Amino acid sequence: MKYCFGIDIGGTTEKLGLFQGDGVILDKWEIKTRTEREGINILKDAAAAVESKIAERGIDRDDILGIGVGVPAPVKDGVVEKTANLGWPYKDVAKELAELLKLPVKVGNDANVAALGEMWLGGGKGHKNLIMVTLGTGVGGGIIVNEHIMSGAHGAAGEIGHICVNYEEKDHCGCGRCGCLEQYASATGIARLARQKLTDTSRQTILKVEGVSAKMVFDAVKEGDEVAKEIADEFGRYLGYALCNIAVIVDPSVVVVGGGVSKAGEILLTYIRKYYQERAFFANRDTGFVLATLGNDAGICGAAKLVLE
Amino acid sequence: MKYCFGIDIGGTTEKLGLFQGDGVILDKWEIKTRTEREGINILKDAAAAVESKIAERGIDRDDILGIGVGVPAPVKDGVVEKTANLGWPYKDVAKELAELLKLPVKVGNDANVAALGEMWLGGGKGHKNLIMVTLGTGVGGGIIVNEHIMSGAHGAAGEIGHICVNYEEKDHCGCGRCGCLEQYASATGIARLARQKLTDTSRQTILKVEGVSAKMVFDAVKEGDEVAKEIADEFGRYLGYALCNIAVIVDPSVVVVGGGVSKAGEILLTYIRKYYQERAFFANRDTGFVLATLGNDAGICGAAKLVLE
Repeated sequence: MKYCFGIDIGGTTEKLGLFQGDGVILDKWEIKTRTEREGINILKDAAAAVESKIAERGIDRDDILGIGVGVPAPVKDGVVEKTANLGWPYKDVAKELAELLKLPVKVGNDANVAALGEMWLGGGKGHKNLIMVTLGTGVGGGIIVNEHIMSGAHGAAGEIGHICVNYEEKDHCGCGRCGCLEQYASATGIARLARQKLTDTSRQTILKVEGVSAKMVFDAVKEGDEVAKEIADEFGRYLGYALCNIAVIVDPSVVVVGGGVSKAGEILLTYIRKYYQERAFFANRDTGFVLATLGNDAGICGAAKLVLE
Repeated sequence: MKYCFGIDIGGTTEKLGLFQGDGVILDKWEIKTRTEREGINILKDAAAAVESKIAERGIDRDDILGIGVGVPAPVKDGVVEKTANLGWPYKDVAKELAELLKLPVKVGNDANVAALGEMWLGGGKGHKNLIMVTLGTGVGGGIIVNEHIMSGAHGAAGEIGHICVNYEEKDHCGCGRCGCLEQYASATGIARLARQKLTDTSRQTILKVEGVSAKMVFDAVKEGDEVAKEIADEFGRYLGYALCNIAVIVDPSVVVVGGGVSKAGEILLTYIRKYYQERAFFANRDTGFVLATLGNDAGICGAAKLVLE
């Protein structure tokens, strides 16, 4: 049996997984991400964790295909130019970790790597061309083309959250521009849509302006609340229409929807699909919509898959 | 020396090229496309043309790497499901032509193949990730990801002309929907913008509503005509903003602009770049804009390159 490791480096924890080459997860665990001193210990800690697992399991080094790593930054040829969350300046992640472990290392952007994970072992299993949309605090994404991550010229491909969907918008997105998908389809974006709707309406609803969240909106939708349904509709329209435009470029067979907001379940897909179907280009009409299934494990799964590509 | 052939099958002519493996074009010629009887002769004619060139040049068959083919239809695994222009029903192009010639055959969509050609030998030379936009009667496109064509789940990726750029549009695009980029950035789209502007304005201009064309608009721009400049501005805004959204997905290092409209020259790029720069996501700001250089040869060049991938 051959083995590989998947490592998902986040700002707080490094998640690690030991995989068989056929996709069986043998073990998973976490260590703290030590971001101090420009994150000098992050890769050393990862290497030590891998070494100790190899020893614990008595794995023959010759049976290890390699180590895959996901990092929260654009990645090009294994190199990270800078990261907001890890403290790293320029970092040749692939080279440094390979030198520490004397094993092959592949590196990818965490959102892209999660998309690869969902393709390999999750909601997108069996598909070769997919779009993954992660609806969390922001809107992240990853595009898989012919079973490989599309990373682009600067390692910045698949930044779905920053498609402009409203040229009239006056509020600013975190990126400094106005009208990004993230402003309408993220957890914070849905809460913003809800606040606007609840401020503008005098109709009866179980929702309250103060402290309203994306979860509350979809819980209210499940209760049959009409105002909540209209908010969900607005979310679905922005995301569904944006996905039509992405599909015209990418031609995916499936869209995988993940992130915290996706815990709302199938009802979420109903709203996205409704508007997608309304506007999809004829060649893209049979694109499927599924929920992500791997949750926080998508990163380690996709990272491991990087090695097997 | 190794050789390959590139064939670009259009509704009227089949263009053929004989290439050295290093990209030198040794010969190019055309034959008529015989679309009658469900296009039964199209591949036979192509095969005969290739055979006769092999004999004429005295090329050793062992030195031929293969034949690449571009066709005006979505292509998946060498197969065309249907074509509007060639008369073919379901056609396994790769298999049929390979059987006729006893040589390896690769097949791609013509717009995608042209993009590959521009990457290999044209305006996009030296780039690995690019967007090609073809501004002709319609708006076509091709996306190159890591030196390969992105063809998508149905062979329908890169349909740039059918990105929706105006949800308020009431006129219909040829695809049946409203607000497609093609309605504003194609030769016919620019003429439409011009007719609207010229009907609405009483200001002085050298343009006339009747028979106005994209070429006349850009000729007038070069003469300093203010109304023409406003039409070009509108064109640039639609296309520039659309390219921002495509770049966020694809992260290209360059955008290659071709097709009949691109004969207007560098001035065209000025208008596109202006609006692209205004809205580009920070990671995509240094994307370059260049004109296509291969003209009608892009198809045979890209087709030949398919074999070398």
